Amino acid sequence: MQLAQDVRTRVYKFGNKTADGNSTMKNLLGGKGANLAEMSAIGIPVPPGFTITTEACTEYNELGEDILIGMIKEEVEKALQNIEEIMGANFGDEENPLLISVRSGARVSMPGMMDTVLNLGLNDTVVKGLIAKTGNERFAWDSYRRFIQMYGGVVLGMKPESKDDIDPFEEIIEHLKEKREIQLDTQFTVQDLRDLVYDFKDVVKKRTGNDFPTDPWQQLWGAIIAVFNSWNGNRAVYYRNMHGYPADWGTAVNVQAMVYGNMGDNSGTGVCFTRDAATGENIFNGEYLINAQGEDVVAGVRTPQQITKVGSMRWAELAKIEEADRAENYPSLEELMPSIYEELFRYQDMLEKHYRDMQDMEFTIQDGKLWILQTRNGKRTGAAMVKIAMDLLKDGSITDKEALLRIEPNKLDELLHPVFDPNALKRATIIAQGLPASPGAATGQIVFFADEAKKFRNTILTRIETSPEDLEGMNLAKGILTSRGGMTSHAAVVARGMGKCCISGAGALKINYKKRILTVGDKEYHEGDWISLNGSTGNIIEGKVATRIPELSGEFAEVMELADKYATMDVRTNADTPKDAKAARNFGAKGIGLARTEHMFFEVDRIKAMREMILADTVKGRKHALEELLPMQREDFEGIFEAMQGLPVTVRLLDPPLHEFVPHQLATQKELAEDMHISLSAVKNKVADLQEFNPMLGHRGCRLGNTYPEITEMQTRAIMEAALNLKAKGIESKPEIMVPLVGTVNEFLEQEKVIRKTANTVFEEYDDTVDYLVGTMMEVPRATIMAEEIAKHADFFSFGTNDLTQLVFGYSRDDASKFLPIYLEKGILKVDPFEVLDREGVGKLIKMGTCHGRRTKPELKVGICGEHGGEPISVEFCFEQGMNYVSCSPFRVPIARVAAAQAALKAPERK
Amino acid sequence: MQLAQDVRTRVYKFGNKTADGNSTMKNLLGGKGANLAEMSAIGIPVPPGFTITTEACTEYNELGEDILIGMIKEEVEKALQNIEEIMGANFGDEENPLLISVRSGARVSMPGMMDTVLNLGLNDTVVKGLIAKTGNERFAWDSYRRFIQMYGGVVLGMKPESKDDIDPFEEIIEHLKEKREIQLDTQFTVQDLRDLVYDFKDVVKKRTGNDFPTDPWQQLWGAIIAVFNSWNGNRAVYYRNMHGYPADWGTAVNVQAMVYGNMGDNSGTGVCFTRDAATGENIFNGEYLINAQGEDVVAGVRTPQQITKVGSMRWAELAKIEEADRAENYPSLEELMPSIYEELFRYQDMLEKHYRDMQDMEFTIQDGKLWILQTRNGKRTGAAMVKIAMDLLKDGSITDKEALLRIEPNKLDELLHPVFDPNALKRATIIAQGLPASPGAATGQIVFFADEAKKFRNTILTRIETSPEDLEGMNLAKGILTSRGGMTSHAAVVARGMGKCCISGAGALKINYKKRILTVGDKEYHEGDWISLNGSTGNIIEGKVATRIPELSGEFAEVMELADKYATMDVRTNADTPKDAKAARNFGAKGIGLARTEHMFFEVDRIKAMREMILADTVKGRKHALEELLPMQREDFEGIFEAMQGLPVTVRLLDPPLHEFVPHQLATQKELAEDMHISLSAVKNKVADLQEFNPMLGHRGCRLGNTYPEITEMQTRAIMEAALNLKAKGIESKPEIMVPLVGTVNEFLEQEKVIRKTANTVFEEYDDTVDYLVGTMMEVPRATIMAEEIAKHADFFSFGTNDLTQLVFGYSRDDASKFLPIYLEKGILKVDPFEVLDREGVGKLIKMGTCHGRRTKPELKVGICGEHGGEPISVEFCFEQGMNYVSCSPFRVPIARVAAAQAALKAPERK
Repeated sequence: MQLAQDVRTRVYKFGNKTADGNSTMKNLLGGKGANLAEMSAIGIPVPPGFTITTEACTEYNELGEDILIGMIKEEVEKALQNIEEIMGANFGDEENPLLISVRSGARVSMPGMMDTVLNLGLNDTVVKGLIAKTGNERFAWDSYRRFIQMYGGVVLGMKPESKDDIDPFEEIIEHLKEKREIQLDTQFTVQDLRDLVYDFKDVVKKRTGNDFPTDPWQQLWGAIIAVFNSWNGNRAVYYRNMHGYPADWGTAVNVQAMVYGNMGDNSGTGVCFTRDAATGENIFNGEYLINAQGEDVVAGVRTPQQITKVGSMRWAELAKIEEADRAENYPSLEELMPSIYEELFRYQDMLEKHYRDMQDMEFTIQDGKLWILQTRNGKRTGAAMVKIAMDLLKDGSITDKEALLRIEPNKLDELLHPVFDPNALKRATIIAQGLPASPGAATGQIVFFADEAKKFRNTILTRIETSPEDLEGMNLAKGILTSRGGMTSHAAVVARGMGKCCISGAGALKINYKKRILTVGDKEYHEGDWISLNGSTGNIIEGKVATRIPELSGEFAEVMELADKYATMDVRTNADTPKDAKAARNFGAKGIGLARTEHMFFEVDRIKAMREMILADTVKGRKHALEELLPMQREDFEGIFEAMQGLPVTVRLLDPPLHEFVPHQLATQKELAEDMHISLSAVKNKVADLQEFNPMLGHRGCRLGNTYPEITEMQTRAIMEAALNLKAKGIESKPEIMVPLVGTVNEFLEQEKVIRKTANTVFEEYDDTVDYLVGTMMEVPRATIMAEEIAKHADFFSFGTNDLTQLVFGYSRDDASKFLPIYLEKGILKVDPFEVLDREGVGKLIKMGTCHGRRTKPELKVGICGEHGGEPISVEFCFEQGMNYVSCSPFRVPIARVAAAQAALKAPERK
Repeated sequence: MQLAQDVRTRVYKFGNKTADGNSTMKNLLGGKGANLAEMSAIGIPVPPGFTITTEACTEYNELGEDILIGMIKEEVEKALQNIEEIMGANFGDEENPLLISVRSGARVSMPGMMDTVLNLGLNDTVVKGLIAKTGNERFAWDSYRRFIQMYGGVVLGMKPESKDDIDPFEEIIEHLKEKREIQLDTQFTVQDLRDLVYDFKDVVKKRTGNDFPTDPWQQLWGAIIAVFNSWNGNRAVYYRNMHGYPADWGTAVNVQAMVYGNMGDNSGTGVCFTRDAATGENIFNGEYLINAQGEDVVAGVRTPQQITKVGSMRWAELAKIEEADRAENYPSLEELMPSIYEELFRYQDMLEKHYRDMQDMEFTIQDGKLWILQTRNGKRTGAAMVKIAMDLLKDGSITDKEALLRIEPNKLDELLHPVFDPNALKRATIIAQGLPASPGAATGQIVFFADEAKKFRNTILTRIETSPEDLEGMNLAKGILTSRGGMTSHAAVVARGMGKCCISGAGALKINYKKRILTVGDKEYHEGDWISLNGSTGNIIEGKVATRIPELSGEFAEVMELADKYATMDVRTNADTPKDAKAARNFGAKGIGLARTEHMFFEVDRIKAMREMILADTVKGRKHALEELLPMQREDFEGIFEAMQGLPVTVRLLDPPLHEFVPHQLATQKELAEDMHISLSAVKNKVADLQEFNPMLGHRGCRLGNTYPEITEMQTRAIMEAALNLKAKGIESKPEIMVPLVGTVNEFLEQEKVIRKTANTVFEEYDDTVDYLVGTMMEVPRATIMAEEIAKHADFFSFGTNDLTQLVFGYSRDDASKFLPIYLEKGILKVDPFEVLDREGVGKLIKMGTCHGRRTKPELKVGICGEHGGEPISVEFCFEQGMNYVSCSPFRVPIARVAAAQAALKAPERK
């Protein structure tokens, strides 16, 4: 073994536009090392350096420090010499010193492990060389004290062990600040920084028993070994175990020359993008600062200048700066250093062509020489994402599959909802934060009651929580804000369905309905006050903020076409009205996966009949009230079926507890009593009777239909009559009747019997028939366990993952806000299971339900109609289970379509 | 095949104290046929008859009517002739007619199929023979019209098809009653009955197109074929499919002579028992009527007489009848027909010896000849069950295993709770019915508030529902009555734990707390009025009813000893106080499987500190309040550990939503505000904050410990300090700390970390340690799915089947009363899943959880602590899963012990 290893290369050099390695060698060189090699190899001037392989790390773990160093010493020395030659500087030199960085780099990014030491090579004499070279005494001493601090932490183990522990270096800094009565690091004098260096070295001696190493080579070997050790550090082991990465992967070590942009007016630093990150236009752009370090660009103390002249002039126009002033004080890099600019332009073009995507690059100019520090795929807006992917497809850079996989489905959301004007937003005061329950932007005047949603032209309906009674008002309001409830609360679900902006569960809000006051901290807002909601971030903003509605681009349509080309799983929509149904069809829905019939009962003229039905004590009384509801419900279905033009429509039978339909306010109760000619106390008694301890687990779903079969009869009749009426007009309908909350085979059988019997009666009356299916919602854990039996009778399964998640976890989505945020913060949960489908738990039951159901009935149609149906990771899971469709709210349809297509594209990879 | 079949016997005769078959031939002769053969073979005079085999039924199905009749005709005719000879009467004879019955009889009892035709052989001339023979014209015509009605229904297919259909015979009867202006069948005159016979025959002709068959042989073949056909009838097929019985089992046909006890003073009928069904004493007893049919004994029109002289004299004493009067008018059979009595006495002895159990026999004396119609194991009280089993064991009739298997565990309940004095009960008025939530009898004066439970000497706490705040009052009351909530509501669970009588969910009760009035229909009961509860039946009784406490007999202790001999699975108890713990130990509990720590917080002096803890806004504030609770909680544990003397004690950490602890009444809220020096509105806000939509799915269980780890710390400290304090006194403790409501691995890990850390701190402080386990409640479906992972860390699993059932079905046990009764009535559910563990659904997750858990950790301790732990069928299920223990309320411990032993005894059968 020794022999074989001895001929191995353990150190890979890069720099001077060549490299020993390349991007395919991630396993050996780590991700970072491979990328640096790749950039160098294609001719990009990265600061030179070398990578010690991951194999060397494994050898180190097996053989120990001495043997490892013995094996790589010669190679490292040669590689360092190579850096010195390229940089024209020498490691440990007192006049023209080379400083280096040492970084870890595993084959995948591991945030728990990344240890870095910068400015390595400094000591009391070398620091003088740095002063000489930069002419900046303050910078040199600051670099030195930072180096000791980092090295002390990473290499010498002087990191605080827990949050309660104090960092010994920070303690010294704080102490000095107190003594000098200053607050900021930047207020330190050169002398202060020198004092810090000496104090730091003292504390190192005290803590470790050894002097801080002054020999640069000793520093380097210490750092290399520290990086190898970090592979078996607590954080790294935890992270590896969590992700199942094997211990023998090891980490590489990257050693690289430091370059500085603050070496005078011939130096500088900047960031640039190969395309416009906001619009996606193919325009090179970026910002830079002369004689500055990377931090200075970020810190915002100095105003960065534009890289291109065009960009610079546009910037000046917006900032109202005269051209002369601009050219004098804020010249572009293109004007100031034309040859450097030209070089940079060439590199950005090379890099984009090489990586075939928009690049976000960092560069430094050191003493007139351009170094590219880093390049990566640039962050971009949803609009830019779509445009860039399609542009790259059109110019032949990428294939259509690649273009499709470049789309982050969730980012499409940005294109479908109003957004705030970015300029208006700059002056906004955020007063509180809630859950980003339904995306988009809304601005309006506060109202506290749904029936007052029309009180002003633009209103924000502001409530503790919403209930189905508030539907009409929610529809009228511009946005919805609640102080309670989670991402799947009533407000959130309904708002997403409507494509309306909503923030839910903003716990800091105290709402006093009586006084019509919203209190946040010590601020009060009254009815009629303006507020604005950012439904995509959860920010609640004081006052009016201008919004704009984005237009759907041609590229968007092209993405959708691509999605259709590759998707094999259908996307349906959750829609309860012809309007929603049409919107969803326009977004490409292939049917309705969930039409909630109860939403139809809340309209003013219907709720009365519904309440009479509920208050009736006899079957006869109920039937009478149901007869009144029949024509209205039939009309609803006619509208929806017509809107869907022959696409399948899954109609869920009445689901919510009856309690939600009865009036809870005295005035309305009185009115109802009078209308029905019964006593007020009778109404009150019934309302009290319907009250439940846990309505989620109460008398609802098919438990209603099974105790009051006449409701199921009326709804089936309405569906069948609607379909037959349309058939007479030549319009096709495909009703799929869905029984909710089934947990036992008999629960389904009883309902199926009523449905089929009623349908047959209607068919006889019309002397005509329509094809229809009868299936079940799978949302009770027991149903998934009994799937094999249920599938004997059901035509389809539709997983209702909202309720299924509630029951599998035992979490009430309306109450979970008390502990879910803490669980997420503590890492007890990685994601909110109401947002992203829980594969391990809920997913296992879905898998079981699907497999067992299809074991009985191979052709069983299976879909999902919970909120997860519009969440890309969950959509992928549904695809993996072989579902026929996912169903989501209309505005999520495009997202689900792309997610479904991507899942199909990724599928062969998994095999 | 034909040839082989031709030599088969297809008709098996019995009667005259011999038989062709015996009880081992159930598959061939059906259950009924085999039993009749057995009785006859051992020398019991059963009315003679014959059985056509189940194989003949299968042949009929394959070959059809004609071939079958051809094959069995000769055998049937010979067998009938045998009956005629034994009975000395002739089939179809006009003077001394033999009448027969024809019944189905499969190898197992099938309630859906049983078709019976009685009095077969009657026609217009034979009826005259019957009149001549019995001298009872009315009886003869009534028998005739009943025969036509039964034959018409069973053989000629004139049964109503659905509930809405009208029975054509009943229609005629109703019509005649209207015409004659009478209400009862018994008011018909002989002429009426004759008219009915003619009208019945008319309707048969009209409906079937054929005359009613007058030839007895035609009648007989029709009936035989009809019974064969019934095997493939809708009801039978449905029943067979439901139970998985194969179609080729077939049914046998039993043809038997009719005997009549109403043929004059030399005839009679009666029932008798080989032992006393109430006490189990070995005393022959029973009742009879001279010149009567079986119905007459049941109808209660005539007072039945005692069979033995001793019994008769005791009866007269109770009824205050003089001996002369008795001997004259109510003589015993022993006195009236000494030789018949002697014969009967001999048979009862034979039958009990043969069947080795107390027998319940029916007999008829026809014209001086005794016929035994039926014998079966007699129904008995719990006390009799225990005594009879032990007596039979002692006299060597049965083995100890058999004796143990003779115990119906649930019936032991009767022995453990007060019962009503049966005489006092006779005069009781039942005012309503609720769920029999906790067995026993209670009588007391109504109080409506828990803190008024001491207002009278004996009180019945009468509430809409109870909450943990009511605990102390519940303990003081004699019985608990609620108008809401199911078998596992708070009231029910707590009452069973206390062994206190409780009726829950009595929906007919309207309770007005303000006016302190209980209304049932139009009756009103006020505070202080007496009512009585039968917790074993659910009957609510007006006024005071005397109760008595049964004493536990020596035989009871013997049964328990037997249980311990054979049980392999332990029985623990759910107990929260030293008192309950001691009671359970006395009943033989092998440890505590569930100690609910929250019950300890409701006592007056503790609830205050608890509330302060809840109202504290900071960790510091909470810790301060928890410090006050610590010594009290430690004392609780010391008491419980001491009571259990080294047996394991599973302590569940705080579980219920905090909401249950805060005051909801204004006065108490004010008090708390003053005590805590905070504003009333602060208290009100917190109470409102804690309100949840679905508390069952809310901020409770380990979600409390994970958001407020200081609670877990305090509880762990209390447990460990208690154990160490006892250890210092030489008393051993085995604490097993249980984390409730775990759904994810991390939820458990976080809690385990806090527990182990706290325990270590306490151990350091005491410089001593105790062994303890940390495990988890398995009650969230997700936990059962993740069992493999959780078992890596947990020392034990305890299935909390109450909550698991709630979540797997999605039923709130507090709200299920709205639909569960209807589900049970409609057969959608066969049993209440909160009473009997649902094997198919919940059971599958338990099985999965146990298997997967033990796959990771073979030595994993597994138990159950839900209500099902005391339900025998569920206990058997737990045994089958290989659980280490079941845990139940103290008064169910004996039941669970017997159930566990029986499960172990039955186990080899299953293999």
